[in-house]
Amino acid sequence: MSETLYGGIAETMLEAIDAGSYREGERIPSIRSLSKRLGVSVNTVKEAYSLLETQRYIEGRPQSGFFVRRKALPLPRATRDIPESLDPMKMSMCRIMGPYQERSENAGFLMSLANIDPALLPEKQLTAHLVEQTRIVGARSLEYQFLPGDRGLREQIARLGVDAGIACGPDEVLITNGCSEAFHLAIQAVCRPGDLIALESPTYQNFGLLVRELGLRVLEIPSDPQDGINIEILRFALKHHEIKAVLMVSNYSNPLGSIIPEDGKRELVELMEEHRVPLIEDDVFGDICFGPRRPGTCKAHDRTGNVIYCSSFSKSLAAGWRIGWILGGKYHERIIQLKSLFSLTTSSVTQKAIAAFLREESYEKHLRRLRSNLARQMGCLQEAVAEAFPEGTRTSRPRGGLALWVELPAGTDSLELYHRGMEAGIGFTPGPVFSVSGRFENFIRLCAGFWNPEIAETVTRLGKMAKAMKKSG
Amino acid sequence: MSETLYGGIAETMLEAIDAGSYREGERIPSIRSLSKRLGVSVNTVKEAYSLLETQRYIEGRPQSGFFVRRKALPLPRATRDIPESLDPMKMSMCRIMGPYQERSENAGFLMSLANIDPALLPEKQLTAHLVEQTRIVGARSLEYQFLPGDRGLREQIARLGVDAGIACGPDEVLITNGCSEAFHLAIQAVCRPGDLIALESPTYQNFGLLVRELGLRVLEIPSDPQDGINIEILRFALKHHEIKAVLMVSNYSNPLGSIIPEDGKRELVELMEEHRVPLIEDDVFGDICFGPRRPGTCKAHDRTGNVIYCSSFSKSLAAGWRIGWILGGKYHERIIQLKSLFSLTTSSVTQKAIAAFLREESYEKHLRRLRSNLARQMGCLQEAVAEAFPEGTRTSRPRGGLALWVELPAGTDSLELYHRGMEAGIGFTPGPVFSVSGRFENFIRLCAGFWNPEIAETVTRLGKMAKAMKKSG
Repeated sequence: MSETLYGGIAETMLEAIDAGSYREGERIPSIRSLSKRLGVSVNTVKEAYSLLETQRYIEGRPQSGFFVRRKALPLPRATRDIPESLDPMKMSMCRIMGPYQERSENAGFLMSLANIDPALLPEKQLTAHLVEQTRIVGARSLEYQFLPGDRGLREQIARLGVDAGIACGPDEVLITNGCSEAFHLAIQAVCRPGDLIALESPTYQNFGLLVRELGLRVLEIPSDPQDGINIEILRFALKHHEIKAVLMVSNYSNPLGSIIPEDGKRELVELMEEHRVPLIEDDVFGDICFGPRRPGTCKAHDRTGNVIYCSSFSKSLAAGWRIGWILGGKYHERIIQLKSLFSLTTSSVTQKAIAAFLREESYEKHLRRLRSNLARQMGCLQEAVAEAFPEGTRTSRPRGGLALWVELPAGTDSLELYHRGMEAGIGFTPGPVFSVSGRFENFIRLCAGFWNPEIAETVTRLGKMAKAMKKSG
Repeated sequence: MSETLYGGIAETMLEAIDAGSYREGERIPSIRSLSKRLGVSVNTVKEAYSLLETQRYIEGRPQSGFFVRRKALPLPRATRDIPESLDPMKMSMCRIMGPYQERSENAGFLMSLANIDPALLPEKQLTAHLVEQTRIVGARSLEYQFLPGDRGLREQIARLGVDAGIACGPDEVLITNGCSEAFHLAIQAVCRPGDLIALESPTYQNFGLLVRELGLRVLEIPSDPQDGINIEILRFALKHHEIKAVLMVSNYSNPLGSIIPEDGKRELVELMEEHRVPLIEDDVFGDICFGPRRPGTCKAHDRTGNVIYCSSFSKSLAAGWRIGWILGGKYHERIIQLKSLFSLTTSSVTQKAIAAFLREESYEKHLRRLRSNLARQMGCLQEAVAEAFPEGTRTSRPRGGLALWVELPAGTDSLELYHRGMEAGIGFTPGPVFSVSGRFENFIRLCAGFWNPEIAETVTRLGKMAKAMKKSG
């Protein structure tokens, strides 16, 4: 269930389309009539239709109204069982991806990375601020910057918190080398080797690989393609296992694209508090919702400092500048100590340039454009998959972020498809990478951060491969 | 024993001065006569005298020759015993310093940090390159840069290796967030919690704090104020303990300022190879020797990839840009994997700016100026300590780096002096911080990266405090 009124209306309409109430090519109710029927403002319905249009579910035709363009594929199926808690040495986490190393820059590989086309980013303003700050700061930029990081940037981050429901001051913020360093610090602050940590399943591959490197055991908590981590199963797990931390992406998780509803976030925070288990919330995709307003956070419901919140500007401004942050709650001091030992401080000029951008430019205006572009790209990707992939394919319906989770027909081996794809110059991420217990064999993750005709063509080729595998299988 | 001819002559002359062969104010042999006596070129003696003059041991007077300006204080005493190997939870490592957080910027605190006065750094060229690269790279600077880091920078680093005796190609280099991330990665690559690691004693405080955070046990190997880690004791320790790694600063260690002689480096590498124990070499100060040519490295003697070499540009160009590197030897791939999990990638524009600086400017010319300034500053600091500190004070004789290790008269409590100093606005680092077993109670570390009349005045005040404590003690 969406948090906003327009979001709820968009979803209801989408469900009606999916259920067959409106067929492809058919007209849906006019803005005015739906506004009357629902008793909401014309603007709210306009926002809902605009969101559906950007995502390519419907299309507006001049003087005629809005028509169904496509219905969504069925949602991927969620697992509901927990594998036994795993010894780090026994984890089967698929290692085929290797570290984040250079591969071909062909269009065929762009779907394999959760990166954003730099053409969608405010390059001119950002580089102008970097140039200006380099000059303003002068020799001071060469010195170590003390922890917890640039005061001006921490102020801007604290102000942005309001949009995510987070009330915090600059002194509660620690600047990090991206969100990756942030969640690494968070885990190290609350877990020791041998401890049990709960991850959502499927989970961001680097979460699994990292906790294995740190010698933790893992409990995989099933996650719903729409609503994220299954709180009831987590509640059961917290009762029966000595879990030391829960690590998850609250908004537009990777690879599911799921978002924990607002009520769920509150419930989750209370549950964790009750069990005195810290919640590590990665919100790196929160700002790139597809609608006009970003969702809330678990941190917003945190009254005791039990939530460690991690984010960065890597999905909205400049991944290459490596600027992230962490709100450590009651672990703040300990996390600063760890940061000073793991990498000492963070690059100062890039911090100052982002602070200046946030102070002097309209981040909101940039986000509006970015969100709408990403929504459109995700719509194109979904559409292309629906056209090209074999009968029985299911896809997630992300309302933000970059990842599309694709369930191939049962029996399709995504690792085999991966190897065939690589030979043909097509990259994507096979499902088992997102599990420590080798699940999701017939799933793949595609990313929508880039879109162009060559990528569309790649999806078509990949779909043919998947079809051929199904036949031969 | 110095590695270079001129260095050896400078040391011999200094020993003669210390032994009383030449008293303060007295003339030492002329360049020409010494060159004849030793059978070396006039230029070699000139280099030796110039080094001694920069360090303020001697001074040249026009038409009259060179005169003794000061003799060095006696060297600090080295410990020779090993404390029992320590459980990480029992380590007494003094925590008073806290993480690297903002303190007063008064001159009184500048001696407490191993930082360099930015006035000694090529700010104009560096910032010009950062501005230029920001413009050249454009939108690409906003993207993640793939591991192992910018190719151009890795090439430059590989070329610089020649000066340190290191033969390597760009593919053997991984760029990191400073040297701190480099040695953190190195430790994580070769140690697991509970393992025993050997550190030199005294050791860089963050080594001790970090290995404790990582759950390692520590063996402190005594280190000589001149020649660094005691290889005979290390040999004994390797025979009798299951050591998993040795971590040390090979050149101008912090806080001793010691340097392992060339023969010692070779011996150390062979010893470690023989025991199949990886050597983690931190060479972050290697480029800021006081003489004109930098010393060699352990890595230079590594034939099997058993040495993991860590360094950065933080002590020679731009600490605030956080660019370091690691040559992981046979652990290279594993270290790249860890880097991708701990902080993903490294900021790209600053990498490119340093690469451009190294390509287009004379790093060697900058280093000449920097080395000579740091040598002079260290001489001023030594002189000021000799004048102001109580009878019985001893100081190290660093031939590079930033740290001066000061042994106060027996019974002087450096932690007490630290607290008195803080009240009076004077910062320095008390000795116990450099030990996991609470040693070095009557030692302090001062740093010579900054020098000005206020700092000189601070040293005088600190000396008075130390004298007062001695009387009252």
